[in-house]
Amino acid sequence: AYHEKVINHYESPRNVGSLNKNDPTVGTGLVGSPACGDVMKLQIKVDDNGIIQDVKFKTFGCGSAIASSSFVTEHIKGLSLEQAGQVKNTEIAKELSLPPVKLHCSMLAEDAIRSAIRDYKTKR
Amino acid sequence: AYHEKVINHYESPRNVGSLNKNDPTVGTGLVGSPACGDVMKLQIKVDDNGIIQDVKFKTFGCGSAIASSSFVTEHIKGLSLEQAGQVKNTEIAKELSLPPVKLHCSMLAEDAIRSAIRDYKTKR
Ligand code: FES
Repeated sequence: AYHEKVINHYESPRNVGSLNKNDPTVGTGLVGSPACGDVMKLQIKVDDNGIIQDVKFKTFGCGSAIASSSFVTEHIKGLSLEQAGQVKNTEIAKELSLPPVKLHCSMLAEDAIRSAIRDYKTKR
Repeated sequence: AYHEKVINHYESPRNVGSLNKNDPTVGTGLVGSPACGDVMKLQIKVDDNGIIQDVKFKTFGCGSAIASSSFVTEHIKGLSLEQAGQVKNTEIAKELSLPPVKLHCSMLAEDAIRSAIRDYKTKR
């Protein structure tokens, strides 16, 4: 009995795909979940003002991981790096009504954003 | 670094869908994984000779769960109920070269087959 919003993001995930990781305005986050062994890639493209213009993700994770990352790509588009870096997995989980056993799936999405921001900053 | 065969089943899963659960020749298995909280539905359609004619699955699970169930639906089509009931998750994991942390995903597929066979037998 999953929440309608999770099912919707799972069945029609937004922003699935890849950006060019060699583009200097792109940051790539690649993270794995210690809890379940699943992996997620999330990429951001940042404009001159430090605003996230575009976001893409790919995951080998479960339905909740797909929904969490799909939701989060929509959520951080248009945010500054600082704002995006403050997104918490508990917000994602609440928004999607994830059951407690699936909290680590939303953690994967939080970790992926941070990792993408870190990569972008390292490249600058 | 997942094996090519997992990726292929994940990206082009076979036999995704549903059969009519009210059809007396259809057995429906619905199982959940205690390890990760994911769920899987697997259905078999059995002919008069006890041979599995058709198989469909749906899962909210991860890439390895999708690949395991996709592989298994192809594998059990044409088998007798007895043969299908003997499929072990370790075979599935070996065939797909799943890493140890993903063994529970193939277990979900094994459990789903058994549960579908049980449901079919209960209906007869
Ligand atoms: S169970 Fe691994 S990401 Fe959800």
